[in-house]
Amino acid sequence: MIVAMQEKASEEQIDAVIEAMAEAGVNVHRTTGAAQTILAAVGSTANLDLSKFEVLPGVLHVHRISAPYKLAGRAFRPEGTVVEFANGAKIGGKQVAIIAGPCAIENREQIFKIAESVKGAGGQFLRGGAFKPRSSPYSFQGLGIPGLEMMYEAAQANGLATVTEVMEISQIEPMLPFTDCFQVGARNMQNFNLLRELGQVRKPVLLKRGIAATIEELLLSSEYIMSGGNYDVILCERGIRTYETATRNTMDIAAIPVVKKLSHLPIAADPSHGTGWRDMVPALAKAAVAAGADAILVEIHPNADKAASDAAQTMYLDQFEKLVGELRVIAQAVGRSL
Amino acid sequence: MIVAMQEKASEEQIDAVIEAMAEAGVNVHRTTGAAQTILAAVGSTANLDLSKFEVLPGVLHVHRISAPYKLAGRAFRPEGTVVEFANGAKIGGKQVAIIAGPCAIENREQIFKIAESVKGAGGQFLRGGAFKPRSSPYSFQGLGIPGLEMMYEAAQANGLATVTEVMEISQIEPMLPFTDCFQVGARNMQNFNLLRELGQVRKPVLLKRGIAATIEELLLSSEYIMSGGNYDVILCERGIRTYETATRNTMDIAAIPVVKKLSHLPIAADPSHGTGWRDMVPALAKAAVAAGADAILVEIHPNADKAASDAAQTMYLDQFEKLVGELRVIAQAVGRSL
Amino acid sequence: MIVAMQEKASEEQIDAVIEAMAEAGVNVHRTTGAAQTILAAVGSTANLDLSKFEVLPGVLHVHRISAPYKLAGRAFRPEGTVVEFANGAKIGGKQVAIIAGPCAIENREQIFKIAESVKGAGGQFLRGGAFKPRSSPYSFQGLGIPGLEMMYEAAQANGLATVTEVMEISQIEPMLPFTDCFQVGARNMQNFNLLRELGQVRKPVLLKRGIAATIEELLLSSEYIMSGGNYDVILCERGIRTYETATRNTMDIAAIPVVKKLSHLPIAADPSHGTGWRDMVPALAKAAVAAGADAILVEIHPNADKAASDAAQTMYLDQFEKLVGELRVIAQAVGRSL
Amino acid sequence: MIVAMQEKASEEQIDAVIEAMAEAGVNVHRTTGAAQTILAAVGSTANLDLSKFEVLPGVLHVHRISAPYKLAGRAFRPEGTVVEFANGAKIGGKQVAIIAGPCAIENREQIFKIAESVKGAGGQFLRGGAFKPRSSPYSFQGLGIPGLEMMYEAAQANGLATVTEVMEISQIEPMLPFTDCFQVGARNMQNFNLLRELGQVRKPVLLKRGIAATIEELLLSSEYIMSGGNYDVILCERGIRTYETATRNTMDIAAIPVVKKLSHLPIAADPSHGTGWRDMVPALAKAAVAAGADAILVEIHPNADKAASDAAQTMYLDQFEKLVGELRVIAQAVGRSL
Repeated sequence: MIVAMQEKASEEQIDAVIEAMAEAGVNVHRTTGAAQTILAAVGSTANLDLSKFEVLPGVLHVHRISAPYKLAGRAFRPEGTVVEFANGAKIGGKQVAIIAGPCAIENREQIFKIAESVKGAGGQFLRGGAFKPRSSPYSFQGLGIPGLEMMYEAAQANGLATVTEVMEISQIEPMLPFTDCFQVGARNMQNFNLLRELGQVRKPVLLKRGIAATIEELLLSSEYIMSGGNYDVILCERGIRTYETATRNTMDIAAIPVVKKLSHLPIAADPSHGTGWRDMVPALAKAAVAAGADAILVEIHPNADKAASDAAQTMYLDQFEKLVGELRVIAQAVGRSL
Repeated sequence: MIVAMQEKASEEQIDAVIEAMAEAGVNVHRTTGAAQTILAAVGSTANLDLSKFEVLPGVLHVHRISAPYKLAGRAFRPEGTVVEFANGAKIGGKQVAIIAGPCAIENREQIFKIAESVKGAGGQFLRGGAFKPRSSPYSFQGLGIPGLEMMYEAAQANGLATVTEVMEISQIEPMLPFTDCFQVGARNMQNFNLLRELGQVRKPVLLKRGIAATIEELLLSSEYIMSGGNYDVILCERGIRTYETATRNTMDIAAIPVVKKLSHLPIAADPSHGTGWRDMVPALAKAAVAAGADAILVEIHPNADKAASDAAQTMYLDQFEKLVGELRVIAQAVGRSL
Repeated sequence: MIVAMQEKASEEQIDAVIEAMAEAGVNVHRTTGAAQTILAAVGSTANLDLSKFEVLPGVLHVHRISAPYKLAGRAFRPEGTVVEFANGAKIGGKQVAIIAGPCAIENREQIFKIAESVKGAGGQFLRGGAFKPRSSPYSFQGLGIPGLEMMYEAAQANGLATVTEVMEISQIEPMLPFTDCFQVGARNMQNFNLLRELGQVRKPVLLKRGIAATIEELLLSSEYIMSGGNYDVILCERGIRTYETATRNTMDIAAIPVVKKLSHLPIAADPSHGTGWRDMVPALAKAAVAAGADAILVEIHPNADKAASDAAQTMYLDQFEKLVGELRVIAQAVGRSL
Repeated sequence: MIVAMQEKASEEQIDAVIEAMAEAGVNVHRTTGAAQTILAAVGSTANLDLSKFEVLPGVLHVHRISAPYKLAGRAFRPEGTVVEFANGAKIGGKQVAIIAGPCAIENREQIFKIAESVKGAGGQFLRGGAFKPRSSPYSFQGLGIPGLEMMYEAAQANGLATVTEVMEISQIEPMLPFTDCFQVGARNMQNFNLLRELGQVRKPVLLKRGIAATIEELLLSSEYIMSGGNYDVILCERGIRTYETATRNTMDIAAIPVVKKLSHLPIAADPSHGTGWRDMVPALAKAAVAAGADAILVEIHPNADKAASDAAQTMYLDQFEKLVGELRVIAQAVGRSL
């Protein structure tokens, strides 16, 4: 932490800041310039609330100079994390993983058809929602645990692992038998109680970036899970909210190399939510693989136009199968497999 | 709902869209122009997933022409909602309410001192956090129910009503005895399970706007609570996330008149989170009252610089008392009292 | 400038950074912590390109610790700037100024009617556009210099000063005789060639904030004008672009106190562009005055619905006159006059 | 254009809107529903100011149903535009073009070295700035026309075409002899006077997206140029401003397929400005090619760390040459050449 004092700061003000820093448990180094004094705290400052110092009299600015996360930082595991699943699939290694499925599990026939398509295309993960957080209280809300059972059966029959969204602590327990990977949705990225509980679970967590979250906040949220002992976290870029309305969200493809630089955690990309439009998904899926994504997550449905939710961004099965073939070529072009 | 067809749409495509609309239960009116065909659904379309139609072949755009909420709409209660509290205070009437307190309840002495200050200044609500959702897992996390008990006692002793944040369903029950108004924080604005439960409670809810939520989404979230039968909802503007970094968030003061126009619900303003800086709070609090806010919510602390969280945006008690005096003059200037 | 080195930075890397800093003409102070080394440049760094140092091997982050502007900074003129006009009006003093007029000057009758309304309401400035920068090439483009002549005559007849937008350098010369204050529109806020020329003119400049500009960038743009010797700059908040679509732009009311803190320049507010809707203008105009704005700029028209441009945000004359009366009460409530 | 009336709109209000629409020159079709009346204008509405109708009494919303641009629309040239240059290079065809050079032309040796690198890597365009619009008045401002001469000579010697930024109308004439393609920078995307003049020039224009511009606004700006008769416009995505600060801008990769769908114009991508960091450029350049970009624009410099401007985002020549090789593989993976 660096505290830059105002040019007109008095010696008393400077002393008060030094004292406050010492109280907070850091060592203070003072640089007295012709015009301005600078105080540097070189110790561990990850736990400090910087704004506390920023409001002290005579202070101009406070700058953080070390990242506020530890376990999620690249330095913690320079070689990178590879998350392994029961079915042998991995996320974070050389192979780019494919995670696909319907926004909502609707019935047995639907989910089995989809599972076969995922397997046929060469994917490893079946994803479907059983509890649907919809912005209108009048929309379809999901099948619940019976839906998950169906999906798990369909996944088992096709050698796939299941990924599904958990929305609150009380769901974790009943979901456990049918879930190979818990997804935390964008709206829950900062539901810290939920994250903490998932830190106690011994199953991987796919953590989606909040719609207005910075990459740093995404890493801090992963830290919540990891600080509980669960290091199997996969981050996921799924578009952020901007002023542009041509797409549902603005997919921040740069988040992929930024995460690779700052963290050891694998990073997935969800071009379905990222764009909101089926015909935009292929371009963005390819872009994500080219930029280094470790997994691609897409919404698919045998009768996409009639999907119970998110119809517009859901691909038909033949479109999906064609896309995976195209992604395979891109993966090879960047030195990976799929 | 209006479906505008592409100029080159075929008669078959048009028929297919008409059929899909009819299936969804609306009556369709067709306008055939020289170049373009337009299909209008004039019935109730609040429950429709518009994007479903947007992806049909030959469709150019789909426009919603009625608001997606009903109970929250101005038309539902044109005279406006006034929320009443046990201590006789009201939000939504002629008087502008003052809600103040610490970000986190720290100890008995702190919360009593603050309660006295709120009462002395002429405020009606004591607000404090017992469960603190912090973005870093290494920060102070709150006192829990014992903290709430302290606050409730301090409020009772000073004729104030209590406002405090609920973060998950399991907290509602134990919080009930000490809570006059449940606050739903920005991060939970779309925690629909929580909202649904609060619809069953018979206590008012202060619903904060999410950091990247539109005003329409805020109204949709209030609809979740109201659809359970709890109509005592107070909305709260607390700043949205933009590219500007001079303030912690960008306070969208226009949300106040927009909510007044679209909805009958009262609207509060939180300039502490809205700006993030103590010295910016007075200007924005005054602006909010001038723009028509029904309540002002500020963070205060007897020893603000040492507050356990949000120190930088927390006012000292004397600053707060001076501010309330200034707000009283503004309230009168816009024909209200305080 | 502070350069924070990475924890694993080598002694050679640190030496290279120190050398680069010295080459750039600053004195370097080194703090060697247990884990991390910090280099502080305490001299004048306003001209430095910080990113140059950020990419040097071993560097973690570079922080600016002094503002990148000088003439615009509060310290340059702690008492604040008051801009005076030929007709005796002032912006930046105790009185809140009213600047009003049509988006586009349309004809003699229109502009005279408006001028009389402004004078009658107690305003001091007549503002109208003669060169209209429209986003579509098929829209009305303005009357040009003959329009300005009409407006100047109407202003003279009513003791008002004129404010009008200049869009390129070649317009300055012909506009001079009819212009008491040059407005630089949001789209030209970073048209640095134009700003530089306006620095040579001896007439005040009203500089509007760009639609995606930070407050710091606004101050840097004012610095361009001031560095040419023209210190009579009035800044103007007119809304920024965010994801919210209920209003045309999101008015950043907090920019008013932020500018007051960082700079000595007066700050105006334009709620017409800030909201885009006539019925939102009063609430935001009041909010701006309550927050400390030095001037309010509104679009008015005797036949607002038929205005040649920006009809939706233009007020009728009687609405405007009523609004000024309301603003006068707010101004008094914050210790000013109008 | 669709005008949706409020549920409580009176017959008089409806008649007044119909009259206003007729006055504006469109045919009106009326749909009277049980609750709501809808008025559709099916004629040419590209020139209409929609907000004019939105403020009429009784109107709920006005929706545009046809794009506000014509010449830029895909339908105008369904086969797509291929822009051809003097040196035989094309943008918009099967081959992905490479445009590279320094942010600022500094001297003869620098620009010749760069030109040789571009040619060696297989690029077709040399890009460099002679007039530098910097946000601080104290930064380096460019060499002007003599710099352009140097660049033109270097380009000629290597069979390259030149691309350079024009900042105001008066520069067009002197730049003409040395310029194969005029670049319009992000800050001038809505400098409509400049765009109009470039519509008269018979040289291609590379039009960069404004930092807060929507894709629709970008297309409207291209319409300004095309409406003057110059159809050789290349659009360019270069990142938009969002709340994320990990990168200088947020590159909207989805803009590439969106432009391909809405328009016939070629689209380039500038990952240097898009990310602001040299080490992020490769990932985003690959993503852009994978998503369908027609050209990639990168900043390069033999001594990048000492570049006179934009040092942090400028690549070294060897990094650039390696990148072009990687992009070639991606181009082939999506069925193109490079």
